Formats: sequence, structure tokens, C-alpha cells
Amino acid sequence: MENRFCRGFTAGAVAAGLKKQKGVKDLGVIYSEVPASVAGVFTRNRVQAAPVRLDRERIASGVCRAVIVNSGNANCCTGSKGMADAVSMARLAAEGLGVAEEDVLVASTGVIGQPLDIEKVARAMPDLMETLGPDRLMDVAEAMLTTDLVPKIVSRTGVIDGHPFTVVGVAKGSGMIRPDMATMLCFVCTDAAAAPEILRNALTRAVERSFNRITVDGDTSTNDTVLLMANGQSGAVVDSPDKEAVFGPALDAVLLELARMIVQDGEGATKLVEIAVSGAESDAEAMAVADAVAHSNLVKTALFGEDANWGRIMAAVGRAGVPVDPDRIAIRFDDVLMVENGTGCGEAAEARSAEVLKKPAFTISVALNMGEGRASALTCDFSVEYVRINADYRS
Amino acid sequence: MENRFCRGFTAGAVAAGLKKQKGVKDLGVIYSEVPASVAGVFTRNRVQAAPVRLDRERIASGVCRAVIVNSGNANCCTGSKGMADAVSMARLAAEGLGVAEEDVLVASTGVIGQPLDIEKVARAMPDLMETLGPDRLMDVAEAMLTTDLVPKIVSRTGVIDGHPFTVVGVAKGSGMIRPDMATMLCFVCTDAAAAPEILRNALTRAVERSFNRITVDGDTSTNDTVLLMANGQSGAVVDSPDKEAVFGPALDAVLLELARMIVQDGEGATKLVEIAVSGAESDAEAMAVADAVAHSNLVKTALFGEDANWGRIMAAVGRAGVPVDPDRIAIRFDDVLMVENGTGCGEAAEARSAEVLKKPAFTISVALNMGEGRASALTCDFSVEYVRINADYRS
Repeated sequence: MENRFCRGFTAGAVAAGLKKQKGVKDLGVIYSEVPASVAGVFTRNRVQAAPVRLDRERIASGVCRAVIVNSGNANCCTGSKGMADAVSMARLAAEGLGVAEEDVLVASTGVIGQPLDIEKVARAMPDLMETLGPDRLMDVAEAMLTTDLVPKIVSRTGVIDGHPFTVVGVAKGSGMIRPDMATMLCFVCTDAAAAPEILRNALTRAVERSFNRITVDGDTSTNDTVLLMANGQSGAVVDSPDKEAVFGPALDAVLLELARMIVQDGEGATKLVEIAVSGAESDAEAMAVADAVAHSNLVKTALFGEDANWGRIMAAVGRAGVPVDPDRIAIRFDDVLMVENGTGCGEAAEARSAEVLKKPAFTISVALNMGEGRASALTCDFSVEYVRINADYRS
Repeated sequence: MENRFCRGFTAGAVAAGLKKQKGVKDLGVIYSEVPASVAGVFTRNRVQAAPVRLDRERIASGVCRAVIVNSGNANCCTGSKGMADAVSMARLAAEGLGVAEEDVLVASTGVIGQPLDIEKVARAMPDLMETLGPDRLMDVAEAMLTTDLVPKIVSRTGVIDGHPFTVVGVAKGSGMIRPDMATMLCFVCTDAAAAPEILRNALTRAVERSFNRITVDGDTSTNDTVLLMANGQSGAVVDSPDKEAVFGPALDAVLLELARMIVQDGEGATKLVEIAVSGAESDAEAMAVADAVAHSNLVKTALFGEDANWGRIMAAVGRAGVPVDPDRIAIRFDDVLMVENGTGCGEAAEARSAEVLKKPAFTISVALNMGEGRASALTCDFSVEYVRINADYRS
């Protein structure tokens, strides 16, 4: 079948009535026809939703058959009923699929603090099972959306020992995005085979290079979950450093592209901006500077206003908590030198930068000229629409 | 003279043309008729404006006669010309006042990265000197404003050894406000006498309890300056712990009220909200939690939307980086219990909280129920207007 998203996986989604908007898909499932190895990365927030706590326990087995996901309700801060509901959601899916209950993982996203209507999930389950197909992953991507505007799917392929394999991921995430994860869910399927330990290493590294490098609004979520399932149906086996060197970049590419799509779809965002810091005394210090600039509300509102207000960038660099010498700093908007030796390059540079600021995507480079450390972060502008979206989210 | 703001001090301000809006006051001076003791607290941002660097040097003497302040230009990231301009600004004021150049301090606020037009300052100086009067401190408060809407003056009195004394402060600050100081300037005059060392201790403590407990947008500035001048003209002398116990609370009260006024006048703010955290394992951990909630864009946009979205408060608590047990957390909006044992208190509580959210000022209490630590932070809501103001600031 040509348009299957990944060998040995099927997926499907329905409108279960969990979202306020009627008839919108809000319950999805991804199913592996054979037992898959699994690894996961979860939020570091101390307040964790019931499904996150359940998945943490279950993933220890290293085996998974399915993940069931809903939007419209985060099932977080919902007490013992919340955990019972997460368990029920997995059991209902397991019964429908005919697999063991403990091999089903659960993810939820939406409003915090309201009980999940598990009856709606139960009623929708027969229909959900009927939707399962090898070409329905886009439906799951849709069913995961909250304030996101577009479903996000990315696929990459590779070859190991002559066996072509696929890595395909779906993600959601729009607000509450920042390093150390975000209200984001991401499920990655591959038809390569790999032990859970190898998946875990590859996933941790890929997340560090992608989702932990993006920011929309500096908040982090109670529900963040990234799962990687490998069912081996391609014949490609990742069982040595050589083969990890083929599989890893494919996984990295999928997650990095999904991360870019999440920032681009940031709540109210109109621009995708990379903050590239070089010349720090270490990569970690470069990251601290990139992070401070990428999170600055004043920088982000100036980007929205297409205002080359580099003074706000200097101020953000200065409060990053790492040693900098303001007099050595250079700042570029794409290739336009705006600041040299800590002072502005004048009106011609301002005029040229105005052209850069009109672009939907560009890079702000900050050269500290202290050492060799470098890092970058992805951010977006901060618009009037962001406030509107978040002021009215629950109502 | 009854309406003098503080014995032995005069003040004045003029429109020097430094602000884009014509005819608006933007250059002010506060003058002590006799040498005053002085102490200062400055921004911890690594990028520091020329006047901040100059004041840090000059304040070491412990003596001051005047402070000259402008708005419309921060004189920051302006290279060696910037420092020369700051020195010139002080010299011009010193010449006008007939005092030693090194006894004049300087403060600037406004756009970063554009050269200060020192010629305009020079041309305005004679007029500025003519405005000096014992009842003109409000003019200085006006001349300091940038995106602030209202001038801020607070006065408190006390008695030491039968001598009534006054502590009066002016402040500006609206955006870039957060713990560890902000784009804020604050000048405090007192007619009590105190050694610079005593002033420094009292000022550091008062700043810690006031300006370092407020947030508008999480950014910190390159220009933050708080100066305290004591000229002793009241006869009250602060020279023992007893007397510090009278002077300190008066100073604390002035700074705390100014801090509240700054948050209330936060860019685009419509609500003043205290985040009161109790039951942490230490005061420092309580402060970390208060800070995370007070800075959350998602909490602040929900406040703007008058949405009792306590799930966002829980999420912010969880990412504060301190140990919490979500199942013990209680959250109140004023006296309305919204969350108990980490879960919501239902629709009746939501309905009652809606009334609280309509108020212009209220308290969100977060009880962690872990220990005895407590702390509070002041914040405001985050409005569409904030984005508008900051997207268009320079243009």
C-alpha cells in the first residue's frame, strides 16, 4: 500500500465531543500491528497530568502496542478520578484493539482542572476502531490540535543493511512552548527495529536538539509527552553505533522539522526567528544568552512591530546571567550588521534591517566575541493575537 | 513654606526636546541646598547605560548635591560618546547649580542605542535652573515618564528625637519591570541625616522588599537606578539601631507604595494582582513560586481575560524548580477557595471567583502546605495594549 505512513502501523481519529466545537476530531489512536519497542520523554513540570504519570510507569516495560490521545481536556489536576480516567481510557482502547491494557499509552491535551468525560470516550471507541487505517495519521494529527492552526506531520527515510526504513512523527503544540518541553505532544513511529535503550538515547538527544530549543511564550506544560515506537517491520535493525549513526539523523530531522512547525504555528505568531549566538565562553553560556533573547517579551513584541529595536536584544543579552563584554557584541539581522562593538551601525543599517524584519523567517545573530561557544534557539514574534487567544481560551 | 516636598531640596523640569512628543517635560533636576549623604542601587544587567556606570563611580564618595535626569533617550549602547555625554550632562548641571561636577549624578531612560542629543540638554539648562523650586518635584516625576501614564510621588513622615522628618520619593517605570530591578528610576530625598553606610543598608533592604518583588513583563533594564539622598535639614539624625528602626519603615513604605504604583501603571495593565505564596519549605522557595506565577504570560493573559484559569497557576507552580506536592496545593482568589488538594472546587467556586476577577486589585494565594516559607510578588495582567505599546515603541 503506497500511502501507508509507516509499515505495520495504523491510525485513526473521531469527534468524541470532548472539544467545545462540535464535530471536530478530538480522539485519536496510533496502533502497531506487532509489539513495538518504545521510549518516551516527558515534562519536567512538577505538576504532571494523570496520563503522563501513567505513561511513565508503563513505559518501563519498553513495549507498547498503541497510544490513545485526546484534545479538549488535559486530564490534569483532576485527582484520583483523573488517574482512574486515564487508566480507563487505555483499557477501552486495549479492548477495542484486542491488546493488553498495560501495552497502551495515553496522552491528553487541553484545559487543566476539569474532569475528563470518560463516557464520551467510551461511546466513541467503537467508531474510533472503525476509522483505523494505514493512511490515517493526518486524522490523529488533527485530533491532537488545541490552539494550533495546522496539523503537523513529518516523515524521513533511511536505509540500513539494504532495508529502507521510515521515521514519521506527528506533533501538536502552540502555546506554553519553551525549552524543557511545552504543551506539546509528539508521537513518532518507525518501522526500524531497536531496543528500548537505543531508542531512549536517540530520542533524548533528538529532543535536546529540537523541542528543547524552541520557545513561544516561556511557559511549560503539565502534559508534554514525546513517544517513539519502533516495530521493526522494515527489516532495518538499529543495533550498533554505525546503524545508530543512520537512524539518529533521520529521527533528529523529523523532530527538528516538527519543532520548527510548532514555533511557526505559535499562538498568534507571524514570524519564525532563529536566535543564533556565537563567541560565548561555552555552548551552555551561548544557550543561556539565546534563551534570554528568545524569551524576551520586549524583543518579541518588537519583532511583531517589525521594529529593529536592537537595544532590547542588548538588554536581554545583559540579563542572561553570563559574563559578556557589551563593547564586543555584534548583532546581525540576517546579513545586515546592526550593532558592532556594542553600538549601533546607524540609519543605513536600520533601513536595510527593516527589509529583513518584513520577512516571515529570518535569523538574528549575536556574536559575543569572547570564546568559541555557540547555540541557537527558535522563537516567534509576540502579537496582539497571542493575548486575545489566551485571554479567551476557556470561555 | 508649607508645600515644599522636603526641607533643603528643590526640583524642577523642562521640555528639552529629547522626547519625540514636543513640549513634553523630559529633563529634570533634584537639588540639595547642602551636601547630602547618598546611597544607590543599580541594575544587575551586564549591559549598563553610561549614566549607570558614571553614578557607580561617583557614589563611592557618599556625597551628592544633585541628580539630573532625562527621558526620551537611555544613553545606553552609545559607546564612548555616551559616557562623554553623561559626564557633560552632569557638568552642565553642576555649572548651573554652582556645585562640584563630581557631586552630580545622572540618570537617563528611553530608547537604547541612539546617541543623546547633548546640545539640547545644554540649550535647556538655563531654563531648567529657573524652574527650580521647593514645590516642583511633581515636574520631575513627569519629566521621567516614558510609557508610564501617571507620575509617581510618595511621601512619608516620622519623628526622631522630637524632630519630624520626611522621606519622599519619585519613580518611573512601566515596562521592563521584574525582580532584580527594571527600567525604573527612583529618587528618594529625606531631610533626616544619616551616614552613607546606614543609607546603603536601609536602601538595599527596602529595594529587596519592594522593587525586587514586582513584575510587569519579565524583562530587566540597562538603566535601573535607585538613589537615596539625605541632607539632614530636619535635625533628625539616624545614627543608631533605634533610629534606623524609625527611619527604615518610612523608607520601606515609600518604596513599597511606589512599587505598587509602578505595577498598577504597568504597560497596558488593567489589574494589580498580588501573588501570595505560603507553606513552602523556605522563604526563598516561596519566592521562586511567586515569581514563576507572577511572570507567566499564560496566567497574565488569563487575568486580562478575567478567566479563573487556575490550571495555568498550577502549571506555573510546577515549573518553579522547587519541590511541591501538587496534591497538597490550595489556591484562593481573595477569599474564594478555587483549588483544594490540587483539584478544582467546582462551579460554585468558579462563579464566585468571577466576581473577584472583575476587581481592579486582588490577591491570588497559593498554599503549598509543605512548610513555613512565605513570600509575595506583585504583578499585573497582560493585555492586548501591552503588545501594541511595545510593538510600536520606537516608531
